[in-house]
Amino acid sequence: MKECGAYLETMRANAPLVQNITNYVAMNVMANVLLAAGASPAMVHDAGEAGEFARIAQALTVNIGTLSPHWLRGMEAAAQVAHDTGTPWALDPVAVGATAMRRDAGARLLALKPTVIRGNASEILALAGAEAAGKGADAADSVTAAEGAARDLARATGAVVAVTGAQDYATDGEAGYRVDNGHALMPRITVMGCSLTGVVGAFLVGQSPLSATVAALAYYGLAGERAGAQAAGPGSFQPAFLDALYALTPQEVTAGARVTRA
Amino acid sequence: MKECGAYLETMRANAPLVQNITNYVAMNVMANVLLAAGASPAMVHDAGEAGEFARIAQALTVNIGTLSPHWLRGMEAAAQVAHDTGTPWALDPVAVGATAMRRDAGARLLALKPTVIRGNASEILALAGAEAAGKGADAADSVTAAEGAARDLARATGAVVAVTGAQDYATDGEAGYRVDNGHALMPRITVMGCSLTGVVGAFLVGQSPLSATVAALAYYGLAGERAGAQAAGPGSFQPAFLDALYALTPQEVTAGARVTRA
Amino acid sequence: MKECGAYLETMRANAPLVQNITNYVAMNVMANVLLAAGASPAMVHDAGEAGEFARIAQALTVNIGTLSPHWLRGMEAAAQVAHDTGTPWALDPVAVGATAMRRDAGARLLALKPTVIRGNASEILALAGAEAAGKGADAADSVTAAEGAARDLARATGAVVAVTGAQDYATDGEAGYRVDNGHALMPRITVMGCSLTGVVGAFLVGQSPLSATVAALAYYGLAGERAGAQAAGPGSFQPAFLDALYALTPQEVTAGARVTRA
Repeated sequence: MKECGAYLETMRANAPLVQNITNYVAMNVMANVLLAAGASPAMVHDAGEAGEFARIAQALTVNIGTLSPHWLRGMEAAAQVAHDTGTPWALDPVAVGATAMRRDAGARLLALKPTVIRGNASEILALAGAEAAGKGADAADSVTAAEGAARDLARATGAVVAVTGAQDYATDGEAGYRVDNGHALMPRITVMGCSLTGVVGAFLVGQSPLSATVAALAYYGLAGERAGAQAAGPGSFQPAFLDALYALTPQEVTAGARVTRA
Repeated sequence: MKECGAYLETMRANAPLVQNITNYVAMNVMANVLLAAGASPAMVHDAGEAGEFARIAQALTVNIGTLSPHWLRGMEAAAQVAHDTGTPWALDPVAVGATAMRRDAGARLLALKPTVIRGNASEILALAGAEAAGKGADAADSVTAAEGAARDLARATGAVVAVTGAQDYATDGEAGYRVDNGHALMPRITVMGCSLTGVVGAFLVGQSPLSATVAALAYYGLAGERAGAQAAGPGSFQPAFLDALYALTPQEVTAGARVTRA
Repeated sequence: MKECGAYLETMRANAPLVQNITNYVAMNVMANVLLAAGASPAMVHDAGEAGEFARIAQALTVNIGTLSPHWLRGMEAAAQVAHDTGTPWALDPVAVGATAMRRDAGARLLALKPTVIRGNASEILALAGAEAAGKGADAADSVTAAEGAARDLARATGAVVAVTGAQDYATDGEAGYRVDNGHALMPRITVMGCSLTGVVGAFLVGQSPLSATVAALAYYGLAGERAGAQAAGPGSFQPAFLDALYALTPQEVTAGARVTRA
């Protein structure tokens, strides 16, 4: 892949319109994360317009965090359009193993061929059909333990699969990368993973899925490092994080990215 | 009109109960913006109670950002009561031109005679039936290009129409004002426009709609200037903005407002 | 009761999975408050899975802030499971006196025997069947005026009842405590009460309801004092508040708690 900063530069030049059907907890932060990074977010979820809007969006992200049957219909309508039109789309399978409704939603959305699947270790294990320990939105399994499941899931679905946690891992089923950027405060702030899926979606526009995903993970983790270095806790971390997403240059991302083949 | 600070002073003395049927992205920020400014926000949307609650609210705002048919029924029920009881209400037609569902919702809500319509240039152009370039929540047209459409829309509906962006413009179809307050970071933060509609709603209580709207725009823009002067980016802007809304005095608003007849 | 810090220490050792069916305004802040305090929040509301999820949650909180009939079904399903399995659950009856739909929802949820009811004075008065002045989410009655209603409501329902405001009061119908921690900026920030209900829910796991509630009120108020001491207004208060929830030690909570029998 190219240097990580190049993917950020292209994303900012695109300033893509990213449609996000996400959970109620994440909406505001995710929109601010996308704006700070340089994209144009739109939250359009209802089945009566989600598919129509997906025709004008340049990327789509779907997150099942606060799932309901009505929202699932909008997710499927939008993902179907993305699938049919070749628009890249990213799936965030929040707590997919926790209930029957989530397992069913996960299976339905997988069938619509996401370009990228991003989850924590417990979610990727659950989606791959493995035994997972996590029950809620927080992972109870390590990223390393999920690398095999990630490769299996990537091969079975054709998606790039990203497992994020203390260390991140992304694979297309063949090549794999580990990304070591990030900060220990990040799990103490809600919707950091959900918002990352939005950034991945923005990076996908016009770029190779695996490389774009890896670059997005490095950029996001670097912003976390910068914010963590000046934060007194999870509260002051949040404004500092948005400032860092806004301020980081492609050169700084290339210089700070800790990416290795794996 | 009187000096801008006088409208802020009256709003704070009223501390009005403002019912907001707004989008999921804006809810928290809008409530905090209204509390910081000195009003009492209430988010009550369901068709089963929205009209009943509108009878006790002193102002109503309606925003179609994350629209669904069920929420539209609540919006119509509340706006109908506001219309019938003479309660001022403000319409925020987010991305009204993007889908058929939004165009239909815009037409239905216009028929209930909003006191004020506040949107970006693309939204006002779309609502006025003109050709607009914006697709999502972000404008792709300039405020100046929408001034004629704003006057037309004001005349056709009887509403005060406010177009906001780098420069703001408000008109009742006859008189018009430009407001030059604001900061370049504001478009990099989500729901700044949505939250402004809440402030406009609070200012409308017991005050002349065009003057109150212009004063609200100046106050809000001034708070943005103050926040922008101390912010390192869009993250640190947000707490500084709420602090500024809270701290600005009527005297400071009068002194800092850049309002011209147009 | 033991020293207040001991209840915080136990809560952090439990790091409980707390299911919250709350309003759209509160979701993000409440999740961050729970994470900063040391719990693991999950927002799962739909009737199709809320009861199933309640079987794995260690505590449940239910908040009627942005009520709708569909969400009420999820609330009832989850509260029924909590009731049947002995899982502690806390009810937050936002603006319960404002509309017929809210009064009905309050009665239905009371019938499912919440472990704790936390509200402002107007809400507790309304729930107890007394005459209340508050109309929206903001109280218009003093906590002192609601102490008798709180005792009556506790006796009638078997719940611990907490009335929060400038001073807090908690009772099981026999014993009562006043908690004098807090800061004058707290009512100028939205969902501070809603988020407190989440913290109460986390403290309930494996601890005596009245003592755990009192300790949660003191901890939360202390975090407010610390944040208020360094905040310039309601905007800068919010990150400082999360930082304080995160940083406060059990020893500091014990030392700073201002709790008296009443």
